[in-house]
Amino acid sequence: MSDRYIVGVDLGGTSINVGVVPFDGGPVLGMRSAPTHADRGAKFVVDRMVAMIREAIRDAGREAGVAEERVVGVGLGSPGPLDRSTGTVIETPNLGWRNFPLRDLISNAVGLEAELDNDANAAALGEWWQGAGRDVRTMIGMTLGTGIGGGIVLDGRIFHGVSDVAGEVGHMTIDSTGRRCNCGNYGCLEAYASGPAIAARAIEGLQSGEPSLLPSMVEGELSRITAETVYEAIVAGDEYARDVMRDTAKFLGTGIANLINILNPEMVVISGGVTRAGDHLLEPLKAEVRRRAFRPAADRCRIVTSTLGSMAGVIGAACVFRRERYG
Amino acid sequence: MSDRYIVGVDLGGTSINVGVVPFDGGPVLGMRSAPTHADRGAKFVVDRMVAMIREAIRDAGREAGVAEERVVGVGLGSPGPLDRSTGTVIETPNLGWRNFPLRDLISNAVGLEAELDNDANAAALGEWWQGAGRDVRTMIGMTLGTGIGGGIVLDGRIFHGVSDVAGEVGHMTIDSTGRRCNCGNYGCLEAYASGPAIAARAIEGLQSGEPSLLPSMVEGELSRITAETVYEAIVAGDEYARDVMRDTAKFLGTGIANLINILNPEMVVISGGVTRAGDHLLEPLKAEVRRRAFRPAADRCRIVTSTLGSMAGVIGAACVFRRERYG
Repeated sequence: MSDRYIVGVDLGGTSINVGVVPFDGGPVLGMRSAPTHADRGAKFVVDRMVAMIREAIRDAGREAGVAEERVVGVGLGSPGPLDRSTGTVIETPNLGWRNFPLRDLISNAVGLEAELDNDANAAALGEWWQGAGRDVRTMIGMTLGTGIGGGIVLDGRIFHGVSDVAGEVGHMTIDSTGRRCNCGNYGCLEAYASGPAIAARAIEGLQSGEPSLLPSMVEGELSRITAETVYEAIVAGDEYARDVMRDTAKFLGTGIANLINILNPEMVVISGGVTRAGDHLLEPLKAEVRRRAFRPAADRCRIVTSTLGSMAGVIGAACVFRRERYG
Repeated sequence: MSDRYIVGVDLGGTSINVGVVPFDGGPVLGMRSAPTHADRGAKFVVDRMVAMIREAIRDAGREAGVAEERVVGVGLGSPGPLDRSTGTVIETPNLGWRNFPLRDLISNAVGLEAELDNDANAAALGEWWQGAGRDVRTMIGMTLGTGIGGGIVLDGRIFHGVSDVAGEVGHMTIDSTGRRCNCGNYGCLEAYASGPAIAARAIEGLQSGEPSLLPSMVEGELSRITAETVYEAIVAGDEYARDVMRDTAKFLGTGIANLINILNPEMVVISGGVTRAGDHLLEPLKAEVRRRAFRPAADRCRIVTSTLGSMAGVIGAACVFRRERYG
């Protein structure tokens, strides 16, 4: 199949990424990225996706002489929950869609078969196929961003559960009487370790008088602090920002220890902007895992950061199509 | 294979249960139960298991004319962690064993092939094969007792993870700064909802002056209160005992919601003495799950109590042998 190609599409609340992925792996061709502009409506987003797919195929032809007929299909990664069998996005607050038949709209418009899966699942599968998780049998991918997504890969396949919702690790309770989460509950991992949660915790500490460089970095407007600002303050040597990251690491370590106790995976791959904090994040995270996870499980689990970065979603979406259609 | 039989052995810290299980399911023959007496040493326990296996086979012959040569093997469920490939119990605090080659000792003594798995895994597989989980593809079994064990069944097979430790649901953190657990950590599910944890929480409330029938039921000796006493007080109409059970249900519901968010199973089967509390446990438990689990996952998951009770371990251990040897 080495002369075939699959278009991978990673649809996010902020941006759309599209690329042409060789059937057996290798460098992505015709790669492009554009803002989603979900506020302009579903038709706008779908039209943009269709245009990007066409452009990516055209550019793959220019870059590497890929003939259009060698592109066999489109893999789509989308925020969920969704119904894979009908290719429908059931609901996605970020995009404002409900029961939206994304797969068939794209498939009909570009004249190619398509498959749909959850964006975090696709990213995890991408890391397994071409990234950090190569040669690993049981792997969990965690995407840390505005929310916290997850994907479980067992023997090279995404584990979907009974209604395509498996892997919702962000709403795992780690503190049953703890922080309020956007989902309405208390103590979800996401309420502690998502980007906005990291910023919120940082701001709370500053408001109670912790000394830090952070206020000066946002000219005193604390509401402008993001997880990115916290990272920049660490780079600038700020002790308080380092504490905020250490707490983040503990919360993430607690959630990952739970996953390790339940699934005993060979590897956990974490991705997203917060991983730029490197060892400021990873070292205390691993220490917390060792404290909380069952020893024979923790000893066998490597915790690593993504090697594909933002490409994981595109590569993984292509792999979704390959898995569904070619096994 | 309907003329074949497998001996199922459920080894626990308190008792050993043994029975002869028809290869294709059906009533267990030659069933027997005896105290483990782990304090008398490993040789005593192994000798007792061997004697019980022989007696069970003999009785199956008397009860149903089962000829000895039709018994094809022995399935063993044991506390863990353990190494299935070598048939070795790595460590079990309740029995005081370390790197103990249980499978081969039993196999050699009785002259039958044997397979070893974790007791909670075996119980879950038993419920899937012959109990509450028949016809279910993705099922989690939870055993509530002195500890909280778990087993994950995917497509009729136990999911073991990379080092046979998957399903350790009792040490999932639900409250990262919460109650101290026997394992040394804080906030494990087991520290809230195991039998001893239920009793401990009940006693704490009484010590801070909660009015209840409980003290009179143990002649004022609060240390004699067990989860069983709490259950009896509920039956006697005690409001405080009902509150203790409602809290237990919330903690369990939080843990089960986590499992549902992560694995999106079709069914969760809970077993153990505490399930005698019936709807006093199940109703608030299900309400907590609805509060905390992702809706499309919670809607598709049935939460039920075991139908096999203490037989699940024996039936499941037999199924472990069948799965390993016959697929």
